[in-house]
Amino acid sequence: MEIKSYKKDAFYSYTLGAFPTLELILNHKESLLKILVHSSFKNEEVLAKIQEVSSICDIQINDKLISKLASKENCYIIGIFKKYEMKLNQNKDHIVLAQPMNMGNFGTIIRSALGFNIHDIAIISPCIDIFDPKVLRASMGSFFSTNIQIFPSFEAYQKMYPNRKTHSFMLQATKTLQNHTFQKEIPTSLIFGNESSGLDLSYLNEDSLIIEHEKSIDSLNLPNAVSIALYEFYKQKRS
Amino acid sequence: MEIKSYKKDAFYSYTLGAFPTLELILNHKESLLKILVHSSFKNEEVLAKIQEVSSICDIQINDKLISKLASKENCYIIGIFKKYEMKLNQNKDHIVLAQPMNMGNFGTIIRSALGFNIHDIAIISPCIDIFDPKVLRASMGSFFSTNIQIFPSFEAYQKMYPNRKTHSFMLQATKTLQNHTFQKEIPTSLIFGNESSGLDLSYLNEDSLIIEHEKSIDSLNLPNAVSIALYEFYKQKRS
Repeated sequence: MEIKSYKKDAFYSYTLGAFPTLELILNHKESLLKILVHSSFKNEEVLAKIQEVSSICDIQINDKLISKLASKENCYIIGIFKKYEMKLNQNKDHIVLAQPMNMGNFGTIIRSALGFNIHDIAIISPCIDIFDPKVLRASMGSFFSTNIQIFPSFEAYQKMYPNRKTHSFMLQATKTLQNHTFQKEIPTSLIFGNESSGLDLSYLNEDSLIIEHEKSIDSLNLPNAVSIALYEFYKQKRS
Repeated sequence: MEIKSYKKDAFYSYTLGAFPTLELILNHKESLLKILVHSSFKNEEVLAKIQEVSSICDIQINDKLISKLASKENCYIIGIFKKYEMKLNQNKDHIVLAQPMNMGNFGTIIRSALGFNIHDIAIISPCIDIFDPKVLRASMGSFFSTNIQIFPSFEAYQKMYPNRKTHSFMLQATKTLQNHTFQKEIPTSLIFGNESSGLDLSYLNEDSLIIEHEKSIDSLNLPNAVSIALYEFYKQKRS
């Protein structure tokens, strides 16, 4: 198998760096194809963990291929894996992202979500390529502990995961996150629109929430808004 | 004056796009040098606002220079301005950023800060170039409503702005933001470390705070952490 720089239609993707590669090994061993190690990499602890999977995947010292895949970045370990399918957990809380378009933002959201104990993210297409190495890098390896499932429409998501409390975050909402008390007993979905246009008015209802802020800015940046909502939700769930 | 692509040591910088340029005009008219308008730009409302400053600055249709300064971006308006000095307001709440290194992150932080009514940001050097067009772009124009002052050390900041309540955000803190009640009467400084190393232990004291999160991530991304802290602070200040 010849490994080329990532393309959306490839059946594989790869992690850049030791930390995300260890997360890949820890959570998705079954999808490992190959691990590339740079000849100058000497961290014994990491090498030992990589060695543990030598029976199920090829481990190769290949500086040339690393430099090709990592392009400009300093990178000493690359984990190549087969893309896999994920399903959300019906009984857990979800984030729903409608048409996310920025890979760095999406990776950052995955990281915050995991920090606040959300392991399930629904995406309404069209959207970024969730397996792009840029997403994996921005998620700092959190990608591999998260279930991500893409739906053609919000209705399709609701049909597959019914009977949930849903809160759409919208500038048009009248209830504020600051004054809201979440119901703890029922699985909840927190819904966010994309970077430029937010959610359309079909998402607006009596459970919609706005993160109250000064009029001097139009809106918060998407990962910041999602992180704030997750913080408040997590805080209430644990209190 | 020949305008070249931005360099750190230039005495001028520039906004890319109509919205940040209008914010520049609104808040720092006195620093305007020149406004570039693309020949295909037809938004009458924006053009009228630009025309209002025609007596104090040169307005030029110059597609070639716009395309040079904006490089790959779609951009129809550029505002060129003389860099200016800022001072923080002693009586207001501040954010302090120690050694911020990512321009996009810094711009995003400015935007969240303004959204949560913080107009004063201290920076402890070494740091990014605060006037870089990448910062201005990420701040979505919020830069021009914010006072940013650079200090050689945290001690230098404290000497110039004494008698404040300070909270350093650190993973080593024992008090959580979630359980903390801010004092409302005294000007407060919220302090954050940089993207890769956080704050060093010299910042750790009994007022240090941690944003409690799951152990499954090392830390939150910096702009997300700052936004969460600002949200909680703003919420408490207004309640």
